[in-house]
Amino acid sequence: MAKELKELTPRSESYTQWYQDLVIKADLAENSAVRGCMVIKPYGYAIWEKMQRQLDDMFKETGHMNAYFPLFIPKSFLSREADHVEGFAKECAVVTHYRLKANPDGDGVVVDPQAKLEEELIVRPTSETIIWNTYKNWIQSHRDLPILCNQWANVVRWEMRTRLFLRTAEFLWQEGHTAHATKDEAEEEARRMLDVYATFAEEYMAMPVVRGVKSANERFAGAVDTYTIEALMQDGKALQSGTSHFLGQNFAKAFNVTFADKDGNRDYVWATSWGVSTRLMGALIMTHSDDNGLVLPPKLAPFQVVIVPIYRNEEQLAQIDEKAQQIIAALRAKGISVKYDNSDNKKPGWKFAEYELKGVPVRLAMGARDLENNTVEVARRDTLTKETLSLDNIENTVADLLDDIQKNIFRKALNYRQEHTITVDTYEEFKEKIEEGGFILAHWDGTPETEERIKAETKATIRCIPLAGDTTPGVCMVTGKPSVQRVLFARAY
Amino acid sequence: MAKELKELTPRSESYTQWYQDLVIKADLAENSAVRGCMVIKPYGYAIWEKMQRQLDDMFKETGHMNAYFPLFIPKSFLSREADHVEGFAKECAVVTHYRLKANPDGDGVVVDPQAKLEEELIVRPTSETIIWNTYKNWIQSHRDLPILCNQWANVVRWEMRTRLFLRTAEFLWQEGHTAHATKDEAEEEARRMLDVYATFAEEYMAMPVVRGVKSANERFAGAVDTYTIEALMQDGKALQSGTSHFLGQNFAKAFNVTFADKDGNRDYVWATSWGVSTRLMGALIMTHSDDNGLVLPPKLAPFQVVIVPIYRNEEQLAQIDEKAQQIIAALRAKGISVKYDNSDNKKPGWKFAEYELKGVPVRLAMGARDLENNTVEVARRDTLTKETLSLDNIENTVADLLDDIQKNIFRKALNYRQEHTITVDTYEEFKEKIEEGGFILAHWDGTPETEERIKAETKATIRCIPLAGDTTPGVCMVTGKPSVQRVLFARAY
Repeated sequence: MAKELKELTPRSESYTQWYQDLVIKADLAENSAVRGCMVIKPYGYAIWEKMQRQLDDMFKETGHMNAYFPLFIPKSFLSREADHVEGFAKECAVVTHYRLKANPDGDGVVVDPQAKLEEELIVRPTSETIIWNTYKNWIQSHRDLPILCNQWANVVRWEMRTRLFLRTAEFLWQEGHTAHATKDEAEEEARRMLDVYATFAEEYMAMPVVRGVKSANERFAGAVDTYTIEALMQDGKALQSGTSHFLGQNFAKAFNVTFADKDGNRDYVWATSWGVSTRLMGALIMTHSDDNGLVLPPKLAPFQVVIVPIYRNEEQLAQIDEKAQQIIAALRAKGISVKYDNSDNKKPGWKFAEYELKGVPVRLAMGARDLENNTVEVARRDTLTKETLSLDNIENTVADLLDDIQKNIFRKALNYRQEHTITVDTYEEFKEKIEEGGFILAHWDGTPETEERIKAETKATIRCIPLAGDTTPGVCMVTGKPSVQRVLFARAY
Repeated sequence: MAKELKELTPRSESYTQWYQDLVIKADLAENSAVRGCMVIKPYGYAIWEKMQRQLDDMFKETGHMNAYFPLFIPKSFLSREADHVEGFAKECAVVTHYRLKANPDGDGVVVDPQAKLEEELIVRPTSETIIWNTYKNWIQSHRDLPILCNQWANVVRWEMRTRLFLRTAEFLWQEGHTAHATKDEAEEEARRMLDVYATFAEEYMAMPVVRGVKSANERFAGAVDTYTIEALMQDGKALQSGTSHFLGQNFAKAFNVTFADKDGNRDYVWATSWGVSTRLMGALIMTHSDDNGLVLPPKLAPFQVVIVPIYRNEEQLAQIDEKAQQIIAALRAKGISVKYDNSDNKKPGWKFAEYELKGVPVRLAMGARDLENNTVEVARRDTLTKETLSLDNIENTVADLLDDIQKNIFRKALNYRQEHTITVDTYEEFKEKIEEGGFILAHWDGTPETEERIKAETKATIRCIPLAGDTTPGVCMVTGKPSVQRVLFARAY
């Protein structure tokens, strides 16, 4: 029976294997022939497109425009900002030649040694350097500011241990890069985009996030401050889901980008950058899904409703087809996306399992008796419950149900996070509790040394210093030194 | 006066310089620090996004889904299809290393020789090879077919002589890759996508195109047949604007991709690929623009209308602002995109020149007298004419005007093409007429040798063998041998 093909390793047995099974079996992505690079399959890409479209709308509403900058970065550019090169040099794909030639010693082609580049090119791991080198020519005066650009692009970081969506050598992302006349304006922008990310995560992905600022150790290479949204996965590990960086004048200084203010005084330009990536796909999958497969928030599902006809003969199917077309028209008129699967080479049970695996939020099944009674069987993916409902106003019933599912899975994830967020005051207790997973709020003395010791001894990192919540001072659980406020610890992806 | 900054080299003086001036001064794109790679600036990218959105909708309407495949192609993959590697090996960016390290002899970073890849990776010049290697795992039976995928991506071809949008080392494109059970179905798909491209070019870009099939010399490396749409630029040169390839079983054979048909017999899968790129931006610019700047078809303009207030004091401005808001609301309700430029640091004359340069289809200018008379000055970019019209039903007036501009610039481009398409019967006349530019329909004996001779002697190539039009046989203008039908010659970009 085909159903077995769709079975996933249960989460309780191996969360890692469950994730891998799900990504593959739900046709989201797969590994390619190129080490660490994934193929995003059509169904997975359709979810990513929904995310992109929504984020893009939100960027434009906040005044940003898209642009496109080169894939390649001259090697010398990377070195201009000391922390930046330190952060990225170890994982770069390097282009050294620009031509192949026939293999003089046999089959195939070889690199043509005569086509060596004078300066090697790095496949962008992030674009601050090439963009700030470009902005240098765009900015003369305060009238040229702010610049509010975003880019949708692929980037490459040569990761050694990769996992589909979560950590891949090549990934897709957007990177915003903005330039400002004042420090305040740049800081405000960095915070604004963090809020955009948090809103997107919570309202569209139905994934609760903690907003905070990174400790120095976890900061982006070249940033003054890195803001982050942190989510908690079902296995108790944290996942950094988006970051927004206040870059100060670091890149302006590295690329000598200055502007004249209203009084003609020249100063370096202030900068931000911010990004989310296909890693969000991993976050989405791990936040909601279960042992039966994917659970998708209705706002990001490629199709929100699937209709499956249940029939014994062609005549019944024709009648159901006719009714289904009316339902589809009514749903589409309400802006609800629908797939009608009347393919005759698969049984209803196979289809039910398939769309459960793929996380379609609502399934309508319709048989001969439903036709007689003017009813339909309505199943919701999040609770795996079903009931038979009247076809009258089915479009409103379904619209309400989709809203309810969106809210319910958010509430469920929020409950999970609340149940797995604890406050701890001693390092002993911390070491014990961190084994159980979840977020731990604890006091820390603010030094990189203590943070590194905690990481070495417990594999936990400071996910962020939360921007909201308890700001009561205390003493560091490890050193007893003063602590400004509790910070958020977890083991992380 | 700022206006001088916006002046372009006239086309009559140097078409090449005019194009270069226009791309830079209208803020469409610029050269980057990386040889041959461009920066697409926000205004240029906004036009590309309009193109993308429309094409993407058309691909989805014809049953395609988007997916994403790796940026890198193992070197050995390229060699699998003999013509393919021949076509692309000479212009490949090659990744040989995956790490940099601190320079032991001085500043900066150097390639780490210990981080050499076992097999070099090619930055994709096109993705047939990596995709067919992937499809191998997706296809077992006829039930897995057809596969109808498209990818929006960047590709790299190491061109030595580059021109913004027209020929760049890195460019953005979409590449469709489909797999089919029968030859007929694949051929039909290749033709269908050619029709999609032609429809897009004519109805959205307002650019007339000739549909045809390429001669063997001009065929895509690895294709059995290449279909093309060819447009004629204002300087009399042709621009290949989109191609759709029937690939036969070439890539299926190279990557051993077979399927079982209904009777269990195995056969190689049939393939197509098709693409358009940011080159279309060059085509769009060169088809319609004039010495004052860009002329954009309303369907692809980032904003279709600009409103410029003309005022002597703050009080007048406040009154105009109020009226402008009403107009904006009315236009937006009709789906018309509007920019209101009430910035006070630029004079109206400067703004007029700016939006002319940027090709905004309709400009509304409103002064104190207009307020009194309930009128507005309406200027159209295509004809550079203006008239004062009533504000009553201005949204309908503007909607009609936008339709008329879209049609008018298409008609104008079509007239130009018709006036510059001639029929020639002798090689003497051909050599004379080709100097004047334009399309020439002439008989050719069908051999690569004759085609190459014509190219060497006249710099003209066969743009295509038209799919429609005169199919009367004749004799080759060069050799006197039999010719099946006239083919389309031109000098080309």
